[in-house]
Amino acid sequence: MIVVMKPGATDAQIQNMVRRVEEMGLKAHVIVGTERTVIAAVGEKRNGEREKLESYDEVEKVVPILAPYKVASRELKPQPTCVEVGSLTIVAGHIGVIAGTCSVESEAQIMESARKVKAAGATALRGGAFKPRTSPYSFQGMKEEGLKLLAAARDATGLAIVTEVMAPEQVPLVEKYADVLQIGARNMQNYNLLQAVGETRKAVLLKRGPAATMEEFLLAAEYILDQGNKDVMLCERGIRTFESHTRFTLPLASVTYLHQKTHLPVVIDPSHGTGIASLVPDMCCAAVACKADGLIVEVHPDPHHAISDGAQSLTPEVFADTMQQCRKVAAALGLTM
Amino acid sequence: MIVVMKPGATDAQIQNMVRRVEEMGLKAHVIVGTERTVIAAVGEKRNGEREKLESYDEVEKVVPILAPYKVASRELKPQPTCVEVGSLTIVAGHIGVIAGTCSVESEAQIMESARKVKAAGATALRGGAFKPRTSPYSFQGMKEEGLKLLAAARDATGLAIVTEVMAPEQVPLVEKYADVLQIGARNMQNYNLLQAVGETRKAVLLKRGPAATMEEFLLAAEYILDQGNKDVMLCERGIRTFESHTRFTLPLASVTYLHQKTHLPVVIDPSHGTGIASLVPDMCCAAVACKADGLIVEVHPDPHHAISDGAQSLTPEVFADTMQQCRKVAAALGLTM
Amino acid sequence: MIVVMKPGATDAQIQNMVRRVEEMGLKAHVIVGTERTVIAAVGEKRNGEREKLESYDEVEKVVPILAPYKVASRELKPQPTCVEVGSLTIVAGHIGVIAGTCSVESEAQIMESARKVKAAGATALRGGAFKPRTSPYSFQGMKEEGLKLLAAARDATGLAIVTEVMAPEQVPLVEKYADVLQIGARNMQNYNLLQAVGETRKAVLLKRGPAATMEEFLLAAEYILDQGNKDVMLCERGIRTFESHTRFTLPLASVTYLHQKTHLPVVIDPSHGTGIASLVPDMCCAAVACKADGLIVEVHPDPHHAISDGAQSLTPEVFADTMQQCRKVAAALGLTM
Amino acid sequence: MIVVMKPGATDAQIQNMVRRVEEMGLKAHVIVGTERTVIAAVGEKRNGEREKLESYDEVEKVVPILAPYKVASRELKPQPTCVEVGSLTIVAGHIGVIAGTCSVESEAQIMESARKVKAAGATALRGGAFKPRTSPYSFQGMKEEGLKLLAAARDATGLAIVTEVMAPEQVPLVEKYADVLQIGARNMQNYNLLQAVGETRKAVLLKRGPAATMEEFLLAAEYILDQGNKDVMLCERGIRTFESHTRFTLPLASVTYLHQKTHLPVVIDPSHGTGIASLVPDMCCAAVACKADGLIVEVHPDPHHAISDGAQSLTPEVFADTMQQCRKVAAALGLTM
Repeated sequence: MIVVMKPGATDAQIQNMVRRVEEMGLKAHVIVGTERTVIAAVGEKRNGEREKLESYDEVEKVVPILAPYKVASRELKPQPTCVEVGSLTIVAGHIGVIAGTCSVESEAQIMESARKVKAAGATALRGGAFKPRTSPYSFQGMKEEGLKLLAAARDATGLAIVTEVMAPEQVPLVEKYADVLQIGARNMQNYNLLQAVGETRKAVLLKRGPAATMEEFLLAAEYILDQGNKDVMLCERGIRTFESHTRFTLPLASVTYLHQKTHLPVVIDPSHGTGIASLVPDMCCAAVACKADGLIVEVHPDPHHAISDGAQSLTPEVFADTMQQCRKVAAALGLTM
Repeated sequence: MIVVMKPGATDAQIQNMVRRVEEMGLKAHVIVGTERTVIAAVGEKRNGEREKLESYDEVEKVVPILAPYKVASRELKPQPTCVEVGSLTIVAGHIGVIAGTCSVESEAQIMESARKVKAAGATALRGGAFKPRTSPYSFQGMKEEGLKLLAAARDATGLAIVTEVMAPEQVPLVEKYADVLQIGARNMQNYNLLQAVGETRKAVLLKRGPAATMEEFLLAAEYILDQGNKDVMLCERGIRTFESHTRFTLPLASVTYLHQKTHLPVVIDPSHGTGIASLVPDMCCAAVACKADGLIVEVHPDPHHAISDGAQSLTPEVFADTMQQCRKVAAALGLTM
Repeated sequence: MIVVMKPGATDAQIQNMVRRVEEMGLKAHVIVGTERTVIAAVGEKRNGEREKLESYDEVEKVVPILAPYKVASRELKPQPTCVEVGSLTIVAGHIGVIAGTCSVESEAQIMESARKVKAAGATALRGGAFKPRTSPYSFQGMKEEGLKLLAAARDATGLAIVTEVMAPEQVPLVEKYADVLQIGARNMQNYNLLQAVGETRKAVLLKRGPAATMEEFLLAAEYILDQGNKDVMLCERGIRTFESHTRFTLPLASVTYLHQKTHLPVVIDPSHGTGIASLVPDMCCAAVACKADGLIVEVHPDPHHAISDGAQSLTPEVFADTMQQCRKVAAALGLTM
Repeated sequence: MIVVMKPGATDAQIQNMVRRVEEMGLKAHVIVGTERTVIAAVGEKRNGEREKLESYDEVEKVVPILAPYKVASRELKPQPTCVEVGSLTIVAGHIGVIAGTCSVESEAQIMESARKVKAAGATALRGGAFKPRTSPYSFQGMKEEGLKLLAAARDATGLAIVTEVMAPEQVPLVEKYADVLQIGARNMQNYNLLQAVGETRKAVLLKRGPAATMEEFLLAAEYILDQGNKDVMLCERGIRTFESHTRFTLPLASVTYLHQKTHLPVVIDPSHGTGIASLVPDMCCAAVACKADGLIVEVHPDPHHAISDGAQSLTPEVFADTMQQCRKVAAALGLTM
């Protein structure tokens, strides 16, 4: 940490801060500048001390030097993590594709979806059985019945199943059926839930909260990793900005940035990231071109009658076409998918 | 809903949309404009149909007319809701003040806090026993031990206790000790938790998520109200914007806007809303001046050694002074506090 | 500046950075931490060097210590600046009120506005003769004719005139008629314009750009101050965020923050800050309560027929009532207005 | 426009609104819903009327149906606009590449830059002679001297010159030397400047303001088009959001969205869009993959000593490599560059 003192800070105040820094088990280096004195606090502490130091009137600001996450960091583990679950492989250089409907609505719907996304090249099936809905009056999902239909779709097609879990007490039920546990964007900082999925040995797809910084996102992953579960995939699904012509703003630079900071694979969700079906194909190609490790795409056999997310769901035909374009981009860059 | 067709939409497409609207149980009025045709869909549906209609290529956009929340709306219940729990009364015209430390750290700390905030004029005590922390390596709260200390502080001072509950399975434990259940900003869309507190008959302080729209905020309240719990207080605690000189951006216009839309009382949290202790007193006065129904303020006997949120905690002395200023503003505007 | 090296940085790379820092005329202090090496670069440089150092692969980040603005800073001039122009005085402890219509529309309209806002307690008149409009098809202002009407309104009422100037070549014309030159939010970083008004000796009301950080805002003021014009007022008029229920988000904490960083007075514009007339009165009171030095409010004798900004303009009656409330708040806090 | 009345609106109020709508030259259709009455106002008006109607207390909101821009819209002109200026062609299906330094610093620097970017495949040269700088103490550009060096670089390499113009009075000078006039992001709503470049017959590269909505962006283009200048290129260069790990957030979905709404070509600026050189190559590939019509990239022969933007400038070697990757992606998708 670097403690920047205010211009008028007295010697006594500086000495006091040095003592506080040393009490925290850190070494203090005082650097007297032309207009400010700065105290460099050297040591391994990553958390919790900054705010204590900032509470002093004579301190202008405290600048952390170390990232607050550790196990997720590339520094600690330079090799990229490979997540492999049944039909789904997601790793640097090989793009996995998770596709399917927002909600599981019926056996016919999920079966048709599974078959069609598989035919188009998807390597895992998404589908929500427990649905977090903004309104209490919206369809909340088929629950266990939906999970059973997903399992049946896996039996029929061989596709790994990715499905959301919304509460710690649902984890045992969902992990019975799912191959990958998805943590939704609204739950990215639901720490009890993160710990609960961290205790399982199922792969986790962690969605970025729409207002989460990269540090908060990686710290959420750290909650899961810290429980011993190493199979975490980060999913960029768009952030909330002033833009209203799309549902969210999809920052594809997250892919490259995260690749620099963490060994965890990065999956792009252009369906939620834009909220508009006609923008999804181009964003799939762009995600592949900037070397995302995976895609997760909403596809529905009949978007006009989808119970949820119809406006952002591709038809199976458009999805098949999109996959073809993506494969061309991947091949051009020496990637497989 | 207003369905705006694209300029080139054919008669057949317009007739098809009319049929779809009627299938949804709504009446369709077709208005042929100079450049676009618009279909007004009249009826009571509030949810779920918009996206289906937007999934058609020939539809440019669908504009909802009705707010998606209902029980929370002022339209349904014009009189302001009064929340009264022991020492705390929060209602239009009378400002309740919840103050105390971020975390419960020890008996001495919470007792001293309780006595001092009471002396300064607070009417309820805040303190966290279960702490949602961005980093898994940060202090996670004293848990049940903390709840017991809060109850002891209530016994000693008569102050109602406001404390956070983080997961559905914690609700029975927390409600044993607390007077008001707080839903943290990170959990505003943790629907299982909202339903769980909705099933209790404890008052709830619902914090706005830092990226939540007003509609999402009111729909989160609706989840609680929908379970039969009518004692919901809305807490504006700042939103995430591009501003980085404060921790969050505190939009005080939320107070007036919410008063127009809902009967639920509005509480302002200037501590999280700014993240900087020296900005809190002015924001308290401003909140009173724009007729917030309550304040929630972090106060710590020794911010330099606070385990969490030291940088945004007032000392008891500054808090007492702030309360005095607030009372002057309230009196000038004919409000009590 | 603090230069944080990446974990793997070699001794040669560190020595190279030390040399680069010294080439810039700064002293370098090397601090070897447990996981990173940090180089403190001590000296007076405020600009331009950071990016050069950040361009090295082995540098993780560069943290500036000094604020990039100087003449605007409270450090350099601790006493608050008082702007006094005819009937308008804006200074810490005394609130000036600028009110009037968005556009000058006709003699009758601006005269009636001037008389009514004066009667209600305004101390300056606002009115736009050159109008920056988002659409080229919107009314662009009465231009010089409008300026003449403003001058006539000053003659009739004694109110100082605040009006916008949009381009460097308009400055000579506008300064002939105006008492205060307003720089609109869209022009906050129009540096040629800032320099042009900096060369005059007219007071300037500088509006914050809706996406400007505090540093950028103060640097824009610095452009004006740097030309020798000391009479600069900062105007917070709301920022662009994800919120769409208001036109902009009005961060009142800017008042207190700016008071800590600069000696320049701070004026609040709740009309643009919310965009909704019914939210303006409460935001005026809140601005006074957090010690804004001035208010600028849109008032129109007939908002239903206003050529621009009708939805956010107060009627003279509501404005008079609002001023009364504001005066009560000011008096309660020992402020005059 | 759709005028949504408040629930309690009386018949007299509804009749009054109908009259107001008709006074505006529009036809009014009244639709009585279950909870609200809605008035559809049919006609061609695109501007200025909305706010007048929203100023009525009994009006809940007014929803525009028509986009406020016209000449820029795809509706009016379905074929994509092709901009061709000397060596630079930018049009759907063929990607033009503008590359070069942020500032013109010296003859040697700009000549070396021009030769190297040309060798790597750039088809136009960028370089700033007039520099808008956040701080008045930063280097403000070589001015006319810089323009002459750019012209010399064109003579030497044949590359078309893209350079910024900052004020209306600079237009005659800059257009003497430049092939494309660039409007910087800070000046996107400097309407006097937009009109001034609109009056020339030079192609214009219009950068999106970091807080501009798509509507505002297209209306800014409309200002230029409205003066008769048809050669406008839109440049997405990143928006301001809460993200701070990059300088701006680059929303690539803008490409596809703009292609749907306008016939103007879309150029991506990944240098400003990220602010970090190591993120630029991937964003170039992604931009090509989502069918941007052009790229503008900062390249400097020695970023460590660049006077400005060193941290986001590619070396010529990295740029050459990036171009190679981009060409592969383009070829895979049937695009030329």
